[in-house]
Amino acid sequence: MDKIGRYEFRADPFHCDCTGKLFMGHLGNHMLNAADFHANDRDFGIRYLQTINKAWVLSRLAIEMERMPEIYERFYVESWIESSMRFFTNRSFRVVGMDGQVYGYGKSIWAMIDTETRQPCNLLDIKDGELAKWELKEELNPIGKLTRVMMSNEAELAKSMETGYHDVDINGHINSVKYIEHAMDLWETDWHCEHRLKRVDVAYVAEGHRGDRLNLYREQTGEMEFCIRICRENGDELCRTKMVFEK
Amino acid sequence: MDKIGRYEFRADPFHCDCTGKLFMGHLGNHMLNAADFHANDRDFGIRYLQTINKAWVLSRLAIEMERMPEIYERFYVESWIESSMRFFTNRSFRVVGMDGQVYGYGKSIWAMIDTETRQPCNLLDIKDGELAKWELKEELNPIGKLTRVMMSNEAELAKSMETGYHDVDINGHINSVKYIEHAMDLWETDWHCEHRLKRVDVAYVAEGHRGDRLNLYREQTGEMEFCIRICRENGDELCRTKMVFEK
Repeated sequence: MDKIGRYEFRADPFHCDCTGKLFMGHLGNHMLNAADFHANDRDFGIRYLQTINKAWVLSRLAIEMERMPEIYERFYVESWIESSMRFFTNRSFRVVGMDGQVYGYGKSIWAMIDTETRQPCNLLDIKDGELAKWELKEELNPIGKLTRVMMSNEAELAKSMETGYHDVDINGHINSVKYIEHAMDLWETDWHCEHRLKRVDVAYVAEGHRGDRLNLYREQTGEMEFCIRICRENGDELCRTKMVFEK
Repeated sequence: MDKIGRYEFRADPFHCDCTGKLFMGHLGNHMLNAADFHANDRDFGIRYLQTINKAWVLSRLAIEMERMPEIYERFYVESWIESSMRFFTNRSFRVVGMDGQVYGYGKSIWAMIDTETRQPCNLLDIKDGELAKWELKEELNPIGKLTRVMMSNEAELAKSMETGYHDVDINGHINSVKYIEHAMDLWETDWHCEHRLKRVDVAYVAEGHRGDRLNLYREQTGEMEFCIRICRENGDELCRTKMVFEK
């Protein structure tokens, strides 16, 4: 089996926005799906991990796109392991059109936890270091590295919202990509029709749970750059995201 | 080409709810995708209609499921034309597992409008009655017929909400399936973990637009049956839906 997994997706009409291009949230979900398929096919996915009471936890995600798939278009999301250390693994993504044109990339960092103690586990313990065998040393991903998303305490409360049934995944947590969607919803549809989200970085800090009420704080950090902190109502930070738009 | 079109979908992990089954909204989108693929393959889809300034408009939708596809499961959505009249066509759906087991059905009614005048058009004018050639007279869909969704004026305001970027489709309208999702969000996640939406009927009355604020009015009409009216803030009714749950 190849180190790179390649999975075909389609920009379904009902997953496309007002500009006729795939919603960033759907692309993010496709990347997480690709990660899941890649890991399951190589026997270190959630299906195997469940048998030993372990689970993958997404810690960071960045997506940078030169163009987005258009309505009805078929495209591939490729995924591979860049490196794996004791407590973290770096996983890359590449989005490729049917003609081989590269549309953009993703980077992510994952930890593994024990699902009973919620404590981090040593990734190199899985099947005697199986993960390391899949590392692709070659540098194939040219986008800037994952940023830490630095924010001041000046960010203003932009929105307070309930989460609901559609935010919650099979584990009872708020779906990682829903934070990106809620942050994007801080801008009106008109803004999104005229601006393209070129790059998004997300740092996941803690897991949101069903029933959580969210506060979103926004700060402008550059001409087309904004940072958003998403907290539980009690003030616990759940994630921070940086979004860079272009006209 | 067969009268029945069959399209393969997959219950991706991030499209599954707290019970590990596909969200009803995603199944609804897959049905609308199947309708679109079926029509485009037979040359009366939106791609052709755009060239003559016409468009399909969904008027009614019902989905009744015995079971929902489970996480990772591949399944088919089949679609065919049941009948076509001057101003309306009936389109059926069947959801089938890879082993041939039928999971449930959908029924829908569509009108065609002129995109400039917004007036209804005669469906039988398309390519000299082409649509009628695709009618499948055989009765393959056993679920009860589309109901009108009758509501009294006693329904209480359950929620008032903004729509945003993720509600709006390529035409600038609120995506038909988003109404089902917003109506389902009137119940807490806990309710959905214990109750299954067995059947949903939606009557679409008018198109919602980007920027609309929605009021959702709910009325209990049976032990496990609820009707929801969704209106624009100015009182214009956009749709009514009836939802029947089971434990």
